[in-house]
Amino acid sequence: MSGQRTGFSRREMVLGAGAVAMGAMGGGLLMGAVGNPISRAEAKEPQAVPWPYEKIDPKEAGRIAFEGWYKGFCSYAVASGILVSLQQKVGEPYRSLPVEGLRLGEGGIVGWGTICGTLLGVTVAVGFVAPYEVGKQMLNELMQWYSDTELPLYVPAQPRAEVGVKNASNSPLCHVSVSKWCQKAGKSFASAERKERCARLSADVAMRTVMILNDWKENKFKSDLKYPPALYGTTGQHNCYECHGSKVPSPIKS
Amino acid sequence: MSGQRTGFSRREMVLGAGAVAMGAMGGGLLMGAVGNPISRAEAKEPQAVPWPYEKIDPKEAGRIAFEGWYKGFCSYAVASGILVSLQQKVGEPYRSLPVEGLRLGEGGIVGWGTICGTLLGVTVAVGFVAPYEVGKQMLNELMQWYSDTELPLYVPAQPRAEVGVKNASNSPLCHVSVSKWCQKAGKSFASAERKERCARLSADVAMRTVMILNDWKENKFKSDLKYPPALYGTTGQHNCYECHGSKVPSPIKS
Repeated sequence: MSGQRTGFSRREMVLGAGAVAMGAMGGGLLMGAVGNPISRAEAKEPQAVPWPYEKIDPKEAGRIAFEGWYKGFCSYAVASGILVSLQQKVGEPYRSLPVEGLRLGEGGIVGWGTICGTLLGVTVAVGFVAPYEVGKQMLNELMQWYSDTELPLYVPAQPRAEVGVKNASNSPLCHVSVSKWCQKAGKSFASAERKERCARLSADVAMRTVMILNDWKENKFKSDLKYPPALYGTTGQHNCYECHGSKVPSPIKS
Repeated sequence: MSGQRTGFSRREMVLGAGAVAMGAMGGGLLMGAVGNPISRAEAKEPQAVPWPYEKIDPKEAGRIAFEGWYKGFCSYAVASGILVSLQQKVGEPYRSLPVEGLRLGEGGIVGWGTICGTLLGVTVAVGFVAPYEVGKQMLNELMQWYSDTELPLYVPAQPRAEVGVKNASNSPLCHVSVSKWCQKAGKSFASAERKERCARLSADVAMRTVMILNDWKENKFKSDLKYPPALYGTTGQHNCYECHGSKVPSPIKS
């Protein structure tokens, strides 16, 4: 966590023993299985993170995320908004990543209501795209923005249901975000309106993330937002009272 | 979420336009950039999930996860325990996945204390390894096991600090899990003991996950655990009272 140092060497940032061996070969040509030279582009060489980023269209990422929700729910939706856009724009190594593998983040991980699946999808996508320290800042900003903003904002070209109500969750947790919206809208978790709300919110998170990534690509991304452990001496959200009421425990200092 | 149907076609389960084109080529040989045939093993062909699984050693996965925590914290640690083991045992497509991209789950996502990073790492790893419906059951079981079990259990060959206290978190959330342990142990978040606790817990989660995956490989994995939305009409944990006290709201029914 914040304030702790990690010990990755450049060597370890490339994957596994095979990666190190291939990396050591250096130049642009590798030998294929039958001894013929093949270009680096075709060779199965693991590519260390961060992967190359090119600016993509936030609106298109939002559209993919919205449609993606109805195929694989929140985590898959947002990851696909970003990563499928990059598969199309950049190609490899994004094309080798099966975004369908990120579906299990749905509903705060298979319905447990923990982290909003959209933010789990973003955590993985940004982890491949952005350098570690910058990615941390981006996630910190996104968690705060998600908590503070009246969502959803996105209006799809082809809505599946009407969503008349927006709400600020004051939390990045699925259970809190969804339940507050359901209470405010008077709609059940199983309703078409709740599903549409989560699909639109997926588009919002994908679009916001792409806007941040595009800003970073243009050297315009800055963040001075502190991480929760730096402020509170433990991990957590900023609104301790919401769960603890007035009885917020003091973290152990020793 | 549970009870909803998703619309992936077999075609969409393979990644992107390039994947479909290459998949349509069928056989075992593809053409390299210079026109020489190269084997499928070397070609950059996306592989749909689930990826091939072979039984791996839980203890080795635990060792990798424990050591991994001190390099990249909880999410990376557990993902590497499983996925680096599979890189070594199976090779591709695992070798093309840079596990370092999963670091941002640390501390419940960059210190926000949401889902325990170990379970975020597992969500991604299981998502690549297990078929969707089975992966859901595995995650459901792991969330419950994590919440119920007095952790950590793992004892490393080379401890960095002593960990005399175990605790059951009754929650898969980082903030809840870590804070309860710190209170019980009388140790701060910044202490060497808390770090060692999280490193050992990473080993526990990796080992438990591998045992489940190995059981599944031998057709021994079964689960009849219901998902929270099926029980409560919304996403959430099973112990509503912990945050809500006696005032647990009723979910909207309409």
